[in-house]
Amino acid sequence: MFTVRVELGERSYPIHIGSGLLRQHELILPHLQQQKVAVVTNPVVGELYLEELSNALAAQGVTVVPIVVPDGESYKTWETLNTITDRLLAHRCERKTALIALGGGVIGDLAGFAAAIYLRGVPFIQIPTTLLAQVDSSVGGKTGINHPLGKNMIGAFYQPRLVLADTDTLNTLPDRELAAGLAEVIKYGLIRDRAFFEWLEQEIDRLTARDATTLAQAVRRSCEIKAEIVAEDERESGVRALLNLGHTFGHAIEAGLGFGTWLHGEAVAAGTMLAARLSRDIGRLSQADVERIADLFRRAKLPVAAPDLGVARYVELMGLDKKVEQGRIRLVLLESIGRGFVTADCPPQRLEHVLGGLSQHA
Amino acid sequence: MFTVRVELGERSYPIHIGSGLLRQHELILPHLQQQKVAVVTNPVVGELYLEELSNALAAQGVTVVPIVVPDGESYKTWETLNTITDRLLAHRCERKTALIALGGGVIGDLAGFAAAIYLRGVPFIQIPTTLLAQVDSSVGGKTGINHPLGKNMIGAFYQPRLVLADTDTLNTLPDRELAAGLAEVIKYGLIRDRAFFEWLEQEIDRLTARDATTLAQAVRRSCEIKAEIVAEDERESGVRALLNLGHTFGHAIEAGLGFGTWLHGEAVAAGTMLAARLSRDIGRLSQADVERIADLFRRAKLPVAAPDLGVARYVELMGLDKKVEQGRIRLVLLESIGRGFVTADCPPQRLEHVLGGLSQHA
Repeated sequence: MFTVRVELGERSYPIHIGSGLLRQHELILPHLQQQKVAVVTNPVVGELYLEELSNALAAQGVTVVPIVVPDGESYKTWETLNTITDRLLAHRCERKTALIALGGGVIGDLAGFAAAIYLRGVPFIQIPTTLLAQVDSSVGGKTGINHPLGKNMIGAFYQPRLVLADTDTLNTLPDRELAAGLAEVIKYGLIRDRAFFEWLEQEIDRLTARDATTLAQAVRRSCEIKAEIVAEDERESGVRALLNLGHTFGHAIEAGLGFGTWLHGEAVAAGTMLAARLSRDIGRLSQADVERIADLFRRAKLPVAAPDLGVARYVELMGLDKKVEQGRIRLVLLESIGRGFVTADCPPQRLEHVLGGLSQHA
Repeated sequence: MFTVRVELGERSYPIHIGSGLLRQHELILPHLQQQKVAVVTNPVVGELYLEELSNALAAQGVTVVPIVVPDGESYKTWETLNTITDRLLAHRCERKTALIALGGGVIGDLAGFAAAIYLRGVPFIQIPTTLLAQVDSSVGGKTGINHPLGKNMIGAFYQPRLVLADTDTLNTLPDRELAAGLAEVIKYGLIRDRAFFEWLEQEIDRLTARDATTLAQAVRRSCEIKAEIVAEDERESGVRALLNLGHTFGHAIEAGLGFGTWLHGEAVAAGTMLAARLSRDIGRLSQADVERIADLFRRAKLPVAAPDLGVARYVELMGLDKKVEQGRIRLVLLESIGRGFVTADCPPQRLEHVLGGLSQHA
């Protein structure tokens, strides 16, 4: 088992990464203030892992309130959030009753937001069961729901007390979701760690083949990088924005196609390619590096061509991004592989050129 | 103008108290990060003060997005919260766009919660226009909405950057709302400051007659006491619970009669009398002090007799309180005038006796 510690003062917490952690109640019990927990999950993950987790806790005398909500990004809504808080109230969950998220990013975002606002905040524990959630959503405290006008528009920064990343759960993940998680893993290399990117180029086939040790190493390094960045900038006023490489484009892709059509990680991969091409067009990244990035995404079985939504629609959707300031779109671009930067000064015609060339790039 | 500073480390903020503050844009401008604000208000307060505030800001080049929501506790709901966030999105309010609450406690709670969750948090400014909001709701960062199963069940701790308590706005307050605010003012004396309670006994007629200077002094001392307590215990794990004197009973009264039937302060006054009688019955408070408290409430034109909801219904409603731990109701009681204490050990038969005797007390 690896442990990565997220250093946030009184809100610091550990991420444990390894095999079989779901059954290791001794990792969870020290973080409970009460012998009662609520577990938020979806039907698919619940069917696979809820019993195992519940049994491990029940054997220690902990009462488990299961809350099963529908699966998928399209359910990250007010309505589902309401379902969760209604159930918490109906089961008389109290301020010291911990809320556990058992599932992927959607479950983590929903349950984390519910934990942030139920009784003005209850203890929160993440058990991410997808690669994406293990390397991204469960680190850093971002929670929230979608709005018809944009993704994650409503939410809170709310840190968990504990994250358990059980790599065994990745064995049941569909190929497409494994690939989507790899998009975020590759992102960490791109923005901050060239050596990690190069390690990924070597290990990508072992990762897509789900080699347990290699996956655990990739999760650990990803969490370390994210934890470092979040510790420097918890509320995203500076360096944390780098984590959004490919995300402003990606959110536009998700919203433009309708949430749930593309997986988040797929949209991030295609969005990162747009950012890479734009970085090249403004003279920062070489064409060779653009191709090298595309190669790694392709080997990870990720899309490298963004859908052609039309320039105007892209710009409109990107303008709804949370990172907009004074109406200007702030973009994360690449200086080189291993070094991202944030800019609000990208010439609009360059952006439009990249967005306008999509049919050719496909 | 008085200024009380709430000391919460990086979340510290000033409360300015005095006459004509609404027009003093120089108090607001230093707290804006952008030349655009959204102002949440209701039709009644908006009619009275929105133009004055907007003009003061517009004269300095600040764009004002007005958001008018229906008046009253019964609108402190998911639906109204949604209306606010929809409007913020429709007007492209950004992470640096400040949200101003212009109104009483309901507006402050709703707008504060919207500020806490819109884009995961935007700057928040309170301009409380009721006595209750000036002395209570605008200090301490509690925000939230009601749920059919209980008051303020969903919310966040979210501190404003600035509170402007313009005492001129109290001139347009209905008598009943002025009295409701005095209930919280009296509460501060009861839990923490006997000298302040005695000052209130002397000044109560000047307060109900709305003497501006006396009101400003009462607001200042109330804010000072609340600020001290909140600074000691921001997230209500200890001493802050004292602020809930009369509130567990009061919430049960409000919920039992239907939110909005009694004003919050009215329910707190009657609830405080229940707490006082219970304190007497367990041998902590003298009968003379119980009568002295009732006298002051009566002179403030507040109810001292709680409605007879029946013991079982009271206990059920009190059991839904956020402060319940391991199913046990924690109550704030009085040691003496000027000294409150928290207990989870009140004998249930004593509680039931006080709740059962309501028809006689009326």
